[in-house]
Amino acid sequence: MAEAAPKQRSPAAPRPVRCIVKLGALSGCGAAITNKGELESIDEESLRSACAQLRQAMSDGTAPEKVRGMDWSRRPGDPADPVVDAEGFAGMAGLGLDSNFVVVHGAGSFGHFQASRSGVHKGGLHSTLVKAGFVATRISVTSLNQEIVRALAREGIPSVGMSPFACGWSTQRRNLASANASQIIESLHAGFVPVLHGDAVLDESLDCTILSGDVIIRHLAQLLTPKYVVFLTDVHGVYDRPPTDPNAVLLKEIEVDDNGGWSIVKPALEGNRKGVEISVAAHDTTGGMETKILEAAVIARLGVDVYITKVDTEHSLRALKGDVNTSSDDWLGTVIRAAK
Amino acid sequence: MAEAAPKQRSPAAPRPVRCIVKLGALSGCGAAITNKGELESIDEESLRSACAQLRQAMSDGTAPEKVRGMDWSRRPGDPADPVVDAEGFAGMAGLGLDSNFVVVHGAGSFGHFQASRSGVHKGGLHSTLVKAGFVATRISVTSLNQEIVRALAREGIPSVGMSPFACGWSTQRRNLASANASQIIESLHAGFVPVLHGDAVLDESLDCTILSGDVIIRHLAQLLTPKYVVFLTDVHGVYDRPPTDPNAVLLKEIEVDDNGGWSIVKPALEGNRKGVEISVAAHDTTGGMETKILEAAVIARLGVDVYITKVDTEHSLRALKGDVNTSSDDWLGTVIRAAK
Repeated sequence: MAEAAPKQRSPAAPRPVRCIVKLGALSGCGAAITNKGELESIDEESLRSACAQLRQAMSDGTAPEKVRGMDWSRRPGDPADPVVDAEGFAGMAGLGLDSNFVVVHGAGSFGHFQASRSGVHKGGLHSTLVKAGFVATRISVTSLNQEIVRALAREGIPSVGMSPFACGWSTQRRNLASANASQIIESLHAGFVPVLHGDAVLDESLDCTILSGDVIIRHLAQLLTPKYVVFLTDVHGVYDRPPTDPNAVLLKEIEVDDNGGWSIVKPALEGNRKGVEISVAAHDTTGGMETKILEAAVIARLGVDVYITKVDTEHSLRALKGDVNTSSDDWLGTVIRAAK
Repeated sequence: MAEAAPKQRSPAAPRPVRCIVKLGALSGCGAAITNKGELESIDEESLRSACAQLRQAMSDGTAPEKVRGMDWSRRPGDPADPVVDAEGFAGMAGLGLDSNFVVVHGAGSFGHFQASRSGVHKGGLHSTLVKAGFVATRISVTSLNQEIVRALAREGIPSVGMSPFACGWSTQRRNLASANASQIIESLHAGFVPVLHGDAVLDESLDCTILSGDVIIRHLAQLLTPKYVVFLTDVHGVYDRPPTDPNAVLLKEIEVDDNGGWSIVKPALEGNRKGVEISVAAHDTTGGMETKILEAAVIARLGVDVYITKVDTEHSLRALKGDVNTSSDDWLGTVIRAAK
């Protein structure tokens, strides 16, 4: 977690950001909106649902029921002209949306293939393979970004794509070194929803590396102090062991103390069992329970609640609205928050 | 031409940029690589040729003949997996390219439709139509950017897309107000070819407007002082009247003096005729001879030669190589340069 403080040239945000949303798992591979194991394949239905729920969560009660899309471009493979309801837009007093959200996504089945074939994360741009891989990785992740921006726009959300590389974000031995968020803040002021993504970036020591969506979220959470952060994933939350295990227990509430230690508040586990789980977790590789909780704990310690829920469920809608009650029996998800 | 000096936070470039290339006409609509009058349609053959010629112009003599593509993504509508020659790349000592180029493109048949339906250039983000149009315009122009980056990458050119909006570029009453080029310079240092585009941006007075590719080129020429600037267009250069007029004469060489005045050096026109042409030009609307020459003159006065030539010809290849001889009878194109 140790990280050099990035250079800041960012103006102060005048009103707090409501929510930062990660499309895709925490410490995971962007699952939820892309199809795992299939190169550059979007799960259109999950993506559409996530965007529609985001719109519902943003609605301030005055948003018209009829959704007017903002993607006025041809879709690949669809020769039909896009529908532009200019008169409809002109007649609206406002969008009726509290669009003070930031969306971040990982690479999922975009970018990973290109990055791993070339070793971009290891750096070394003198290698033509790494240089080519850097280019190929950016093409892939920006393609996904474009599709997510379009899906949000089709739901009437004023989304704007922003690549960390183009924003000038860079790293020093993989830790953020320069990450100016002024344009993100300006875009929020102007009523737009910035959409960022894990990206290939320049690194001061290694020449280049991969900046993950989770590191972006952590940095933005520190900088913008949103009310809450939501991770939309393909499982209900963090389990005490791989969710495919029939004995896996969903951890509904985790408290983080000032020292970064954490404890499971709900469900109440028997003492013995807890010991077993932590020992299981210790053997997890990246993407395991421990990693996920530690990542989320950094955000929770800022006083920002973290919700991890399954995309396209009533739980994800509640999380996006910031309306989570862990005492309720019908809540499925994980809340990670600072101990009171 | 009057413009407030943009805020600069840009590090000095250590070696001069060789060339800034505009894909698309000067003061024109991006013609050359998109099909005029057809919504979001790329002229694939012209684009492919422009990229192949760029590769030839960049080659330092050691580039292998076999082109290894850097676009390792699926193409829309093509289910085949991309070809990745990782072993080939790993075996190369270097790319053999002097890639110290910047590429800029206009909107062409991308973005104009969305911008004009909504009036983004006039500003006013309180209007839901303008806000939607801003989103729609950016989606369209970034789609084109993505396709151009991919076309360059397929020719083995290490291209990286950079949106002016995401870079934080903004305007004040349509003049550039903030235009930090440090990331462009860093990318050039690292051996990448930045690909910028005309974009919808935030404006300090108007809320938002359109930043054209020509304004971007002018700014980058001032900042980076390239050896030469090339405009690849769909006609041979600047004519004394619309090129469709059978009497139109191609202006092969124009000199610009210190005061911004200009004179036609080649061909030698009869005194009478010259008077006629200037009077014709005076009635031209945007995109006319006068506008084009005045735009180019700003760059030429920096001591940077400007070449305007037709894409996909031997002339465009010569221009991209910076190897133009206006004394030669077989040169078709317009050179605009500072008077000696």
